Amino acid sequence: MTEPKHDIVAIGNALLDVIADVDEEFIAANGLVRGAMTLVDAEQAEALYAAMPSALEMSGGSAGNTVAGFGSLGGRAAYIGKVADDQLGRVFRHDMKASGATYDVAPSVSGAPTGRCLVAVTPDAQRTMCTFLGAGVELTGDDVGVDLIASAKVTFLEGYLWDPPGAKEAFLKAARIAHEAGRKVSLTLSDDFCVDRYREEFRDLVDHHVDILFANESEIMSLYQVGTFEDALEQVRNRCEIAALTRSAKGSVVMSGAELHIIEAAPVERVVDTTGAGDLYAAGFLYGYTQGLGLAESGRIASIAAAEIISHFGARPAVQLRDLI
Amino acid sequence: MTEPKHDIVAIGNALLDVIADVDEEFIAANGLVRGAMTLVDAEQAEALYAAMPSALEMSGGSAGNTVAGFGSLGGRAAYIGKVADDQLGRVFRHDMKASGATYDVAPSVSGAPTGRCLVAVTPDAQRTMCTFLGAGVELTGDDVGVDLIASAKVTFLEGYLWDPPGAKEAFLKAARIAHEAGRKVSLTLSDDFCVDRYREEFRDLVDHHVDILFANESEIMSLYQVGTFEDALEQVRNRCEIAALTRSAKGSVVMSGAELHIIEAAPVERVVDTTGAGDLYAAGFLYGYTQGLGLAESGRIASIAAAEIISHFGARPAVQLRDLI
Repeated sequence: MTEPKHDIVAIGNALLDVIADVDEEFIAANGLVRGAMTLVDAEQAEALYAAMPSALEMSGGSAGNTVAGFGSLGGRAAYIGKVADDQLGRVFRHDMKASGATYDVAPSVSGAPTGRCLVAVTPDAQRTMCTFLGAGVELTGDDVGVDLIASAKVTFLEGYLWDPPGAKEAFLKAARIAHEAGRKVSLTLSDDFCVDRYREEFRDLVDHHVDILFANESEIMSLYQVGTFEDALEQVRNRCEIAALTRSAKGSVVMSGAELHIIEAAPVERVVDTTGAGDLYAAGFLYGYTQGLGLAESGRIASIAAAEIISHFGARPAVQLRDLI
Repeated sequence: MTEPKHDIVAIGNALLDVIADVDEEFIAANGLVRGAMTLVDAEQAEALYAAMPSALEMSGGSAGNTVAGFGSLGGRAAYIGKVADDQLGRVFRHDMKASGATYDVAPSVSGAPTGRCLVAVTPDAQRTMCTFLGAGVELTGDDVGVDLIASAKVTFLEGYLWDPPGAKEAFLKAARIAHEAGRKVSLTLSDDFCVDRYREEFRDLVDHHVDILFANESEIMSLYQVGTFEDALEQVRNRCEIAALTRSAKGSVVMSGAELHIIEAAPVERVVDTTGAGDLYAAGFLYGYTQGLGLAESGRIASIAAAEIISHFGARPAVQLRDLI
């Protein structure tokens, strides 16, 4: 086994976030599912955008945010996701490279624009997302290079990848290559509704393909259709090597076999926008893990990274995270 | 004279801001003129962007920011500026309309992309800007509708318009229409370096076309090539109806003939990014002025709007300014 060139390689839907403050009325008036990520088509995205207030644009995408956070912590990451050769795609590519990540996936040439995620942030800092996948749907197994996957200690996959048809193939191919190369595979469940859509497949993934699982409380409870967090812990224990489970202000639990760590949430002066909390938690945890730190210390870094991202608008770090840990 | 439909109509270079935190070394390494707005061509813009850290994108442009601020205060504004029919142009158009402004200028069809302004913010919150005008250079007198100008109490012009060749014609046409319709003409000097480039023309404008002048301390001193702010006050007095002169943390001075008001700066907890301070000052002042408030009260609103914009990243308001006044 050669020395890994990257700490992580992450695969996800490449998206530009379009972020705006809205009031509760906006959520109701536009029939949005509060707190969820809903897939929309180009026409729905246009109509919703027209209704949205002035916004700011920022590179996003769940795994993309994790990669940016990972670079900000000082780690070596690579990204696999599909943008178009358009202005928003060039913004995404610029920001990925600026974070220090390797990002060499060829742009799509089908004519579909770069995907975007309309993020409506309500006064309680909750984010409601509508995603138009755009060029993102064209990600396939062909975009997953054997050498790149084998070059990373951990291959990190977002659950949202189960939505576009070709990405599932990319996902499974990457997992297979990673394991054949003696590397680890990590998955984040992404979203309650995503778990609802793919429960059986996700359970199978956790049982057979995933070494390090990320989920929040409601996602893991939904995965195993249990009523309490404790029951979910019982279910996931021993199904994968490590489960890192977040509980918002209650902190997180990191579990590995008989080992269990309760990690407190890092303090946040004011929660502004929760977008990216899970993505950055994963970045922090995987940073600690790939640097050979223990589970508790990795969880502590995860909490700090998550706290930074929810203290401001947008899901990419506003400061160098390495300065915080 | 018919009842004005708009309070202001603003003409400017339509730009998307690309904003990133940088260190002092970045300014030096890229040969940038600290604190200034420098014009760059497409190639220079590409090279600088490649060197920039991860950024956020937001509609900008000096007069565009003033219009967005004006709408946020509750006023009725219209905007004239040129974007391309591309993704960034659609973002600019969306945000302009979302601010409540009238914005009906046809997109350029020459193939030049929407202009952008690369904004490098140093740790002292100073912004250094490099502007690629793109489609903005195609603004001409043809884009200035007689009815639109005549429909507004004040026509507001940014000094930056003197840079693209055709916009000067748009500028002078608008000033002529406004005065023929019995309306007021307002100008902001925009930038020290801009004053340096067009000193004689700007002096002539102030003497013959401008009713309400906005400038900061160093711009007005540069315009009249004097060594003190007091000498500049003496020079500008009686050259236009109103001069509103900003002095950063020292507040501002509003002068009209023998009337002079010293306005304190509104308190700011932490100055994050000074981009847009002058634009929002103008928005606040013109809002008060067009609502028939006195000079001192208009200056107070101006200070509040400017204080809000420098307390966060970006030159568009993060809250409804009407809630602050």
